[in-house]
Amino acid sequence: MIPRYARPEMTAIWSPETKFRIWYEIEAHACDAQAALGVIPKENAQAVWRAKDVEFDVARIDEIEAVTKHDVIAFLTHLAEHIGAEDARFVHQGMTSSDVLDTTLNVQLVRAADILLADMDRVLEALKRRAHEHKDTVRIGRSHGIHAEPTTMGLTFARFYAEMARGKARLQAAREEIATGAISGAVGTFANIDPAVEEHVCAQMGLRPEPISTQVIPRDRHAMFFATLGVIASSIENIAIEIRHMQRTEVLEAEEYFSPGQKGSSAMPHKRNPVLTENLTGLARLVRMAVVPAMENVALWHERDISHSSVERGIAPDATITLDFALNRLAGVVDKLVVYPENMLRNMNKFKGLVMSQRVLLALTQAGVSREDAYRLVQRNAMKVWEQGADFKEELLADAEVTAALTPAEIEEKFDLGYHTRHVDTIFRRVFDSNPV
Amino acid sequence: MIPRYARPEMTAIWSPETKFRIWYEIEAHACDAQAALGVIPKENAQAVWRAKDVEFDVARIDEIEAVTKHDVIAFLTHLAEHIGAEDARFVHQGMTSSDVLDTTLNVQLVRAADILLADMDRVLEALKRRAHEHKDTVRIGRSHGIHAEPTTMGLTFARFYAEMARGKARLQAAREEIATGAISGAVGTFANIDPAVEEHVCAQMGLRPEPISTQVIPRDRHAMFFATLGVIASSIENIAIEIRHMQRTEVLEAEEYFSPGQKGSSAMPHKRNPVLTENLTGLARLVRMAVVPAMENVALWHERDISHSSVERGIAPDATITLDFALNRLAGVVDKLVVYPENMLRNMNKFKGLVMSQRVLLALTQAGVSREDAYRLVQRNAMKVWEQGADFKEELLADAEVTAALTPAEIEEKFDLGYHTRHVDTIFRRVFDSNPV
Amino acid sequence: MIPRYARPEMTAIWSPETKFRIWYEIEAHACDAQAALGVIPKENAQAVWRAKDVEFDVARIDEIEAVTKHDVIAFLTHLAEHIGAEDARFVHQGMTSSDVLDTTLNVQLVRAADILLADMDRVLEALKRRAHEHKDTVRIGRSHGIHAEPTTMGLTFARFYAEMARGKARLQAAREEIATGAISGAVGTFANIDPAVEEHVCAQMGLRPEPISTQVIPRDRHAMFFATLGVIASSIENIAIEIRHMQRTEVLEAEEYFSPGQKGSSAMPHKRNPVLTENLTGLARLVRMAVVPAMENVALWHERDISHSSVERGIAPDATITLDFALNRLAGVVDKLVVYPENMLRNMNKFKGLVMSQRVLLALTQAGVSREDAYRLVQRNAMKVWEQGADFKEELLADAEVTAALTPAEIEEKFDLGYHTRHVDTIFRRVFDSNPV
Amino acid sequence: MIPRYARPEMTAIWSPETKFRIWYEIEAHACDAQAALGVIPKENAQAVWRAKDVEFDVARIDEIEAVTKHDVIAFLTHLAEHIGAEDARFVHQGMTSSDVLDTTLNVQLVRAADILLADMDRVLEALKRRAHEHKDTVRIGRSHGIHAEPTTMGLTFARFYAEMARGKARLQAAREEIATGAISGAVGTFANIDPAVEEHVCAQMGLRPEPISTQVIPRDRHAMFFATLGVIASSIENIAIEIRHMQRTEVLEAEEYFSPGQKGSSAMPHKRNPVLTENLTGLARLVRMAVVPAMENVALWHERDISHSSVERGIAPDATITLDFALNRLAGVVDKLVVYPENMLRNMNKFKGLVMSQRVLLALTQAGVSREDAYRLVQRNAMKVWEQGADFKEELLADAEVTAALTPAEIEEKFDLGYHTRHVDTIFRRVFDSNPV
Repeated sequence: MIPRYARPEMTAIWSPETKFRIWYEIEAHACDAQAALGVIPKENAQAVWRAKDVEFDVARIDEIEAVTKHDVIAFLTHLAEHIGAEDARFVHQGMTSSDVLDTTLNVQLVRAADILLADMDRVLEALKRRAHEHKDTVRIGRSHGIHAEPTTMGLTFARFYAEMARGKARLQAAREEIATGAISGAVGTFANIDPAVEEHVCAQMGLRPEPISTQVIPRDRHAMFFATLGVIASSIENIAIEIRHMQRTEVLEAEEYFSPGQKGSSAMPHKRNPVLTENLTGLARLVRMAVVPAMENVALWHERDISHSSVERGIAPDATITLDFALNRLAGVVDKLVVYPENMLRNMNKFKGLVMSQRVLLALTQAGVSREDAYRLVQRNAMKVWEQGADFKEELLADAEVTAALTPAEIEEKFDLGYHTRHVDTIFRRVFDSNPV
Repeated sequence: MIPRYARPEMTAIWSPETKFRIWYEIEAHACDAQAALGVIPKENAQAVWRAKDVEFDVARIDEIEAVTKHDVIAFLTHLAEHIGAEDARFVHQGMTSSDVLDTTLNVQLVRAADILLADMDRVLEALKRRAHEHKDTVRIGRSHGIHAEPTTMGLTFARFYAEMARGKARLQAAREEIATGAISGAVGTFANIDPAVEEHVCAQMGLRPEPISTQVIPRDRHAMFFATLGVIASSIENIAIEIRHMQRTEVLEAEEYFSPGQKGSSAMPHKRNPVLTENLTGLARLVRMAVVPAMENVALWHERDISHSSVERGIAPDATITLDFALNRLAGVVDKLVVYPENMLRNMNKFKGLVMSQRVLLALTQAGVSREDAYRLVQRNAMKVWEQGADFKEELLADAEVTAALTPAEIEEKFDLGYHTRHVDTIFRRVFDSNPV
Repeated sequence: MIPRYARPEMTAIWSPETKFRIWYEIEAHACDAQAALGVIPKENAQAVWRAKDVEFDVARIDEIEAVTKHDVIAFLTHLAEHIGAEDARFVHQGMTSSDVLDTTLNVQLVRAADILLADMDRVLEALKRRAHEHKDTVRIGRSHGIHAEPTTMGLTFARFYAEMARGKARLQAAREEIATGAISGAVGTFANIDPAVEEHVCAQMGLRPEPISTQVIPRDRHAMFFATLGVIASSIENIAIEIRHMQRTEVLEAEEYFSPGQKGSSAMPHKRNPVLTENLTGLARLVRMAVVPAMENVALWHERDISHSSVERGIAPDATITLDFALNRLAGVVDKLVVYPENMLRNMNKFKGLVMSQRVLLALTQAGVSREDAYRLVQRNAMKVWEQGADFKEELLADAEVTAALTPAEIEEKFDLGYHTRHVDTIFRRVFDSNPV
Repeated sequence: MIPRYARPEMTAIWSPETKFRIWYEIEAHACDAQAALGVIPKENAQAVWRAKDVEFDVARIDEIEAVTKHDVIAFLTHLAEHIGAEDARFVHQGMTSSDVLDTTLNVQLVRAADILLADMDRVLEALKRRAHEHKDTVRIGRSHGIHAEPTTMGLTFARFYAEMARGKARLQAAREEIATGAISGAVGTFANIDPAVEEHVCAQMGLRPEPISTQVIPRDRHAMFFATLGVIASSIENIAIEIRHMQRTEVLEAEEYFSPGQKGSSAMPHKRNPVLTENLTGLARLVRMAVVPAMENVALWHERDISHSSVERGIAPDATITLDFALNRLAGVVDKLVVYPENMLRNMNKFKGLVMSQRVLLALTQAGVSREDAYRLVQRNAMKVWEQGADFKEELLADAEVTAALTPAEIEEKFDLGYHTRHVDTIFRRVFDSNPV
């Protein structure tokens, strides 16, 4: 976890305090279930809830762990200090440390997913607003970094919206996948604990019982979770790269928001660097790097080995905290992105009218000119634009061979930007009026 | 694609013949739609279908491409050789190469997914059958590679079943995600082609229209697809590792099937190597390596750059072909796995009765012995088993301090294997009677 | 291996013919060594060389393997068909299949490395030539995609040269690492074969004996090899991205070479797409994806498991063939890159003189103006350039507060491009006159 | 950074205190060089050293950064608080933030490498000692997890030694690669600072001047560095997996050290889990995950973009701290590993004498028995061992067809373990007496 790329709400999920709190809740709910089954006395189960409002003392637990060398035992010992050794003696009965640890991890991942889903809503909202704002803001579409045909800035925002909406649907699925708990004992057979305990604890913690566990919850669930974060991170990178391109000096179709009083990195007013989106590009790499180790974690030996544990201590907080930060940063960038429609037009007309050459070519063919001749006609006029800075439409209108095939009005019509934007509404309906996934 | 790890059905999806076939169908359906819109003459659209049963000549197309330097144009030229230049002249009208290429890739991925789903069914079927066959075959559960408590071989198969069932559900979702097509023109604005064409072509090809595309279909869909394959591959590795462990000389609880006439690698009858599951372990790595580049493909520049193309030429066939092969190999391995229940018992009793020591400890505590004393009692008898090969139960029965707390019948009961397997039916119901995902 | 991204020389290394050829040589040299030790008769060893000029029949070997289910035995059987069963009977004596297979793989990797090193020399040569050609071609340096201060195109080429030179040194080291062979028997103890055989075979095959092997050569060597290819691929991507940026319509400081007769993708003359460097970007991802599985291959079980084998069947040819192709493509791109110095100047002056604002700021400070005042002075003149398209120098010369601190000559001097290029020679000396690694 | 997998010495390298210390030293040395060049007054340069023993106040610098939004400026402001604004005014003159940041990162990486190299020495020392201790401790070699032929525990340690020695050589090379610094200004042209400053600062900081930099030091160096860490981590995993296999209940040829008073995870004395090596397996994944993002960092836009920065804030401390911890843990594990030679013999004889069947087969063939007959003879006796637990040697001695070909003494000789270990000294000489790389 890199503090400067961390937000408190998500970071809190991974604090020792939160962890112990979840441990406590699992143990307390398990006692309730055990009491209901008659395995332990009801009064002991009730007694556990006396610690309901306790803030567990992390330093004290660490102190105990230094002696016991076992984190769960250390916690239970500390818990006993709060509710009394006598009442505490049935806590954790029949359970295995992993029952608590694995169920806790999934509670944390579910909570993390919920924050991330809310983050994505912020991004979606910003993208939707900006899409509608710039629905008709024409700019040149580019393939290979080269001008192709006109499109609109709204469509750019809309496609990012659709992509993020897909990401959200994926994350919802991944959240469901990870929302399981297990209280199934040393090798998952429920030998020392009734499946009813698992059912009760899971219901209370917002989880489903893992249908079949070993000592641990199967790690393909976690692999899918982190893979999903990796795909979302890649979509963030996608948006970030677009903005970085738009901000480069020669393009300047948009800029990350720069507060009025904010100085650039120098005396040069053009020196406004797209540092937020560059940062998002790097953060995407950081999130993505969790994917492969999460997959390597799947193949544990027999009923479990503990190789996955250190990996998850790293990637679970790191990937969720980083992605949470990135999504929020992205929402802010999109929300406040300064768009320059006039520069978009200027760029599109860098070579005056040239981006319409394909339409002219097509029109000539449709007017009966052979494909070869049409190509030659377009090419020779296009070259004047390219090499001498001429205006394409004017050249065409002045070319007798062209005007023999197309009337001035027909030529004129080919330069109508509306031609390129007439399906924007259709696309917007597809994206925003229904589930675009 | 490595020929020895390839099956014909999947390989065929990625052949040039299949690709050209799909191109043809897309173009022909597009002509139908264009004719319906009145954009091109109906008779020309109909004429395209004259090539319906043609097997396109890949060598000839390559020959043309060597001249035109453009694969789609080469194909269209070849198509014209079949249906006549006159009738062919409206083919591809208003379309962009990517309309054909991207829609084709998704058709291929959908077909590949369908084969993979059928493969997974084979794996699931084998796992289910073997699970029920060995529902009550007791073996020792292991954490950290160390004996823990008894479980059954059926539970092992059942958990792999549940994991594969999750994998199948994920693949179904990924298949849905990738089942889109786009006929939207140079930058996705439908400037030169009506959205109705896209709708018709997609419906005919078994796809949904991509709600918003640029020149290409957004690559987050593909990233998710390959990520999903990576998770499934990791689950294959998980099963493979379990079998490899079971087959090692000292364990020998199962062996990959060895045909009667088949010689081992030497004169040594024990030298039957788990080469299939070792191979699966490697294949899992190969499938997984597609995940990161697929994610790196998401952030294309503006409306598209072509960096993703070479990546997909590699990973699309390679990952699907390898996974198809792996799933089939796995189905065979599971189906024919030779299981040795007697060796399972022998292993469990390597230290006679010792795996029951936890139950005894618990029983002593419940009988009122202090935890420290109970631990000491169990420990001193366990040590005799560990160091001198004694029988744990007999030692306990002979220990006066133990028998002061527990009756012989109580001690005996702690060694009842049935205790550990009494919830197997519950777990099986969870896994097989409902959706275990 | 993707045929369109493969060159024959490298592909040939991975053909079955080459593989069998190397097997043969290893076996023949081993016979010589065994004969020298007196283990087998000299005449039998000599007889093996009768097959020296034989082209082994791959189809025939495959046919035999279909029966024997063992590739090395199939080859030996086929070899016996050439030199006679009697003379062949001592071939492979005391050896293990892996002795042949692993030593062969390393011979192939060494040969692949030699081709790659030659490829890198081509790239280096092109970069060096272009660096000197454009040593003084001024263009704007950019950080964050935003204009910063002037640099030269020669420096850009020179830094790529230095990076590739480092890559070459790394590949030389990786080649040395991989240049080992092992003829050490079933578990590497030389139980059935004298170490002298290994020494002789390795010497003949251009390898060093692996100091200690098991059944296999340790895979950390291979991991390092593929990791090195991954770093080189990343450097290719680095150069490719630079060129792609230079070619984008708004920048147009360079273009990939476009042959005179070559049509663009359309009638638009500006539509020259940087498809080669985009392709290189994708190829870099393909090469890089070999890195992680190669690392996962290191931890084999005990004296070997065969999980690495399928991985290497994929990545060894794929990564070397793809990198070979990419390096050659890169050499061509660099060699023929069309550079537009005039556009470089035009871009630099998009905001007239503004890139010099930092120097002016510094000069004002040094002339005794307070930092705050200096900033304000520069800023107000810069703003006119930024917002109204004014000329920075002229504005400064017309600003009384500025000219109170700096003479016109001093102001003029700040706009001298030579200031920025005066250390180019020093840098070139560092890069080209010595080992820049 | 995960605190439980972190050692103070390495962690300290990445503390803000260390970072500011290095910044300070770079600035102070730069002032010296500038003074020597006459660019700034000597007394000001000297004044900077007044802060030599200052511990910079991180909280104060953070406070200033909260206002200035610039870390280097915040530091310089704080520095001025120590040495006086007047004397501080020439600090950083002509320099760019990246000059300080990038040079600092490399100083940190070099120091990290030095610690890691020392760590590796500890590992090497432990492996060497244990190798010699168990040079002649015979155990069965295994391929595919299946018994093959005898080897010795010493050879196992020796091959890990050789692998780690290669790792060390690689790390030394990576350390050299990363040991460069750059003080070259905004785009690397030395426009505002003389190359002599770079030379002086680098010499003082233990670095070489980067031959050609842009605003940043080229990231292929860092990619190589992290790739190298990834290979070393994979070698750690290799050793860890071997130990985990040895410790599994059925094998029990070694155990991680368990202190006398230490309780296992339960009452079961066999329940000593190889948690340290399992942990190392996970840590290897964590280190390895830095490799791909480090490679993705290479292709920065033009003279720099800042996408690499967030990645490095994560991976630079994380990968070095984790690897440092892992190497030390590994050294301890190897050093104290409890080896059970008697269990090794017992395992080898699980099927009495069967591992010698290949030698017998060979001897029969050499005695003139046809290969088919020899195989049949060995096979029928081996089967009795395999199926009925017979003793292979005794069966052979009782088989008339066998004794017709081999004398009892000859048969006896085939069971001599010394045959398998007679080249151990040779191998040890190769590994330990010379550079085994």
